[in-house]
Amino acid sequence: MEPQKKLINSVDSCVDEALCGLVRSSGGLSLLKGHRVVLRSDLDNLRAKVALLSGGGSGHEPAHGGFVGAGMLSAAVAGGVFASPPPASILAAILCLHNAGASGVLLIVKNYTGDRLNFGLAAEQARNHGVNVDTVIVADDCAFERPSKAGRRGLCGTIFIHKLAGAMAEEGCPLDQIVSTVTQALKGMGTLGVSLSPCSVPGCLPSFDLPPGDMELGLGIHGEPGVKRSKVTSADDVVMTMINHMTNPDSQSHLPLKSGDTVVVCVNNLGALSCLEMNVVTGATINCLESRGVVVARMMSGSFMTSLEMAGVSLTFMKADQETLRLFDAQTSAPAWPNISCMSVSGRGYTSQPPPLSTRPQDEQHLEGPLSALMQKVLEAVCSTLLQKQEELNALDRAAGDGDCGNTHAQAARAIQDWLQDHLVPGCPGQLLLVLAGLVQEKMGGSSGALYSLFLTAAAGHMTGNQSGTAGWADAVHAGTQAMRRYGGADPGDRTMLDALCPAADELRRLKTCPSGGHMAVLQAAVQKAASGAESTRNLAAKAGRASYIAAERLTLPDPGAMAVAAILGAVLESLESQK
Amino acid sequence: MEPQKKLINSVDSCVDEALCGLVRSSGGLSLLKGHRVVLRSDLDNLRAKVALLSGGGSGHEPAHGGFVGAGMLSAAVAGGVFASPPPASILAAILCLHNAGASGVLLIVKNYTGDRLNFGLAAEQARNHGVNVDTVIVADDCAFERPSKAGRRGLCGTIFIHKLAGAMAEEGCPLDQIVSTVTQALKGMGTLGVSLSPCSVPGCLPSFDLPPGDMELGLGIHGEPGVKRSKVTSADDVVMTMINHMTNPDSQSHLPLKSGDTVVVCVNNLGALSCLEMNVVTGATINCLESRGVVVARMMSGSFMTSLEMAGVSLTFMKADQETLRLFDAQTSAPAWPNISCMSVSGRGYTSQPPPLSTRPQDEQHLEGPLSALMQKVLEAVCSTLLQKQEELNALDRAAGDGDCGNTHAQAARAIQDWLQDHLVPGCPGQLLLVLAGLVQEKMGGSSGALYSLFLTAAAGHMTGNQSGTAGWADAVHAGTQAMRRYGGADPGDRTMLDALCPAADELRRLKTCPSGGHMAVLQAAVQKAASGAESTRNLAAKAGRASYIAAERLTLPDPGAMAVAAILGAVLESLESQK
Repeated sequence: MEPQKKLINSVDSCVDEALCGLVRSSGGLSLLKGHRVVLRSDLDNLRAKVALLSGGGSGHEPAHGGFVGAGMLSAAVAGGVFASPPPASILAAILCLHNAGASGVLLIVKNYTGDRLNFGLAAEQARNHGVNVDTVIVADDCAFERPSKAGRRGLCGTIFIHKLAGAMAEEGCPLDQIVSTVTQALKGMGTLGVSLSPCSVPGCLPSFDLPPGDMELGLGIHGEPGVKRSKVTSADDVVMTMINHMTNPDSQSHLPLKSGDTVVVCVNNLGALSCLEMNVVTGATINCLESRGVVVARMMSGSFMTSLEMAGVSLTFMKADQETLRLFDAQTSAPAWPNISCMSVSGRGYTSQPPPLSTRPQDEQHLEGPLSALMQKVLEAVCSTLLQKQEELNALDRAAGDGDCGNTHAQAARAIQDWLQDHLVPGCPGQLLLVLAGLVQEKMGGSSGALYSLFLTAAAGHMTGNQSGTAGWADAVHAGTQAMRRYGGADPGDRTMLDALCPAADELRRLKTCPSGGHMAVLQAAVQKAASGAESTRNLAAKAGRASYIAAERLTLPDPGAMAVAAILGAVLESLESQK
Repeated sequence: MEPQKKLINSVDSCVDEALCGLVRSSGGLSLLKGHRVVLRSDLDNLRAKVALLSGGGSGHEPAHGGFVGAGMLSAAVAGGVFASPPPASILAAILCLHNAGASGVLLIVKNYTGDRLNFGLAAEQARNHGVNVDTVIVADDCAFERPSKAGRRGLCGTIFIHKLAGAMAEEGCPLDQIVSTVTQALKGMGTLGVSLSPCSVPGCLPSFDLPPGDMELGLGIHGEPGVKRSKVTSADDVVMTMINHMTNPDSQSHLPLKSGDTVVVCVNNLGALSCLEMNVVTGATINCLESRGVVVARMMSGSFMTSLEMAGVSLTFMKADQETLRLFDAQTSAPAWPNISCMSVSGRGYTSQPPPLSTRPQDEQHLEGPLSALMQKVLEAVCSTLLQKQEELNALDRAAGDGDCGNTHAQAARAIQDWLQDHLVPGCPGQLLLVLAGLVQEKMGGSSGALYSLFLTAAAGHMTGNQSGTAGWADAVHAGTQAMRRYGGADPGDRTMLDALCPAADELRRLKTCPSGGHMAVLQAAVQKAASGAESTRNLAAKAGRASYIAAERLTLPDPGAMAVAAILGAVLESLESQK
């Protein structure tokens, strides 16, 4: 078994290159030369304020470098992937902040032995340099039921501490007040993760085995084992299991959460969960908390404290009062902080009423007019022609597509026949076209349905009021054809229905200028053009539609769509002629 | 082969639940009842402004709903996963915006047949309702070298169009001006993707096969085939291949990009690429563009237009002038828009100088003092004791840990011996402690090295200037012990070196009150306490350190760390007594 291929240059360089990528793309950040330390590039703004330093192993991006910026961290120190940073770099970062004029430096450290020792050592060294330094240990893990000496691990809740402390530091609060506030916040905070896959340190095999379809509850952000393994169930169920575990009073590490409590929530992508799933889990989390009477004041959902490419999610809850929310809502320039609304999630209306539903044109009652009878005859002729041609069109389509062109047109024909059974044909041609557009959109299906519906809808716009004379038909057919071309993206010569429709539409434009006695001759010519246009597709390579996937030499029959158009126009003409 | 398990409730409900999760967590959004339409919840602010509508299949989250907000989209319509939304929902969204008083509605549509037809049909229907509607088709794909009728696909560049049009609409620009500006922007835009894995529609098998270690260049956001498959190479190489392909003048779909051009860049996670890899690719992209003389004005890096859980990345470049940058930088409340700095990426200094490197204490020249000779003898005694005990300590450790406790202490001892060879022992005990802290931090290694270094560093702070009398040693040992406890997280009784150190440190506090004639007796008592404390660990269960993973009944020997501490203190005493 080989380690998974990753999009990096080398195992050795990936951490430094990732830091460089982050810093280069973020105007507010800079890199401390010779160290894996990301700094605010505006260190001058730290003068007489408390500076905040956090950090830890890499592989948790955007933590921690992405949270450096005004209103969050002043600097972040990175170690190798999943490895604690060396004390020398931590000390260099502290001294940098101290030299910039910071009144004190707060170290925000996740509760892992390596981080505690290395940050602790740097803190003691900094103290010997005269720096006013203090440390907050974040231990927000809710996984373990029994107390252990190592204590709860530091997980995604760390981000909340960055935010609260960052807002206070920006406001000029003194170090001891910040420590006291975040220490209090830590007491009302808990995190639990679940994953459907392991992750793998670059160059290494996966951190653990997890069969497809299984999930692990309560695992650590370095792939440390969790508390339970089970089959993946529904998102609602997984979220409920997580929240039950997190708030179970029998568990030593639980977060006491009761009805009426107000919380800020972070749904954190551990790496490779799709954003679709993230949104589902986010909704499920809100629902589950609200069902317990908990008020969700703010929700952040995204990638904040990842475990490389682990396909999982963690939930963090932080109990919040008005002051906590004020600090949470404060502005920050940290590149990984999301664009969050300052509106409470719970209690907000989140649906809008749709516009008053106009009835579908085909359901409306229309007024008959002088043309109604004629148009009914024409429609009936078109429908029966399409039904007659069903098998012929299918056969043509079998050579070029999926063989259902005749069926599709027959469906439309039958829908129109059914509608004619119990509806009056409106006297206004524009209304009739809208009726047909509605029927075809709903009953014909496929791209053909959409294209005919487009044609009819666009045409209808030109057959209202005083435009609806014979000349109006020319404009209507032209507009319909243009809409089909524009949205369908095909042109004449592409072996589509346009090869019949376009020449006919062009011919019909003569209706606008010729005397009314010549109308029938124009129509005859147009039908002729449609027929020869359809026939010409025999020699065309398909450039659009399904037939475009077939080699030109195998296409020796005409295009069924074009033939259908020619047949429809032919039926219109024949019907009009028979009624003279 | 079974479809991959996803964290959803059901295949049928996942799109609606994801939309609901997005809207519920974003204060500025609402859902249009009965449709998969995300709307700005402040529709009133659209009065007399152009409204923007986009959308398309689901599975590309945060697109498009996440880009709804002031300064970006007014609404987004979602279809099923990878399926175009129905015209009825698109129309409902358009009418909603129209009814809110928008002066016009711009549809921003990705170039796929289904989307073109369905948005087109809705546009024509809206026009029949009297809505001033226009459409922009985004076709930014740079994959295909030969022209095809379907044209270039719409990819992540769509987000840039949302942003530019959104900023203009917010400023009150008329519809035709917005269309003209974004049409111009589209001409200078290109996108190309690469993936190391397929993705799978919920409930379905993966969209294509891709053997581990292979990658596919130029694939679509629905997993449509790309233009080339090859082995995954280095990130630099992959990025160069992508940019070469995107800008190759022989390719019909290329983006002409020459030295001196200014671009805005989007590095888009297609779903499951780790954030570490994303940062590496981001840096590689900046480097590659700059090596061609292209100026990178802005960079956004993250998940914007995903393909479910595809482990890949796409690059989008948009040529930009000052006006484009102004629009790009404009504020937006869209929840998926990142916190981007308005500073140019290229041309910005991004490194800071580390604080002036104080030499390591062990490299400094120190002044000898009256105590130097005595302290040298003591140190020599401690080192030789630790070297004598090397095997004994290893043997104890083999029963409880990894068997190297003696080796670790011997390494420290040899480092001190080496240092003594060519350095004077400083007369100030605080300085000596810092030297030892430095040597131990660098040479001893492991948690022991960090813990001893912590002890020595914290102790050193209490042995400066006038505190450095005999009583000062009591404070120093106490402070060192406290630091070890604080950062190491262990307490007496946990079967660690603290079981020897703490009782000794407590005993030593008597130095502060007893007459100077009694100092040696106090030291003798402290050493006695250390020895019995170490011996007592025989009966303790390990609660911290490596031995905590071993069952208590298997631990029948004393803790090697505690024994080492007792040995060190014993050596100190013996050496002092011998020099009386």
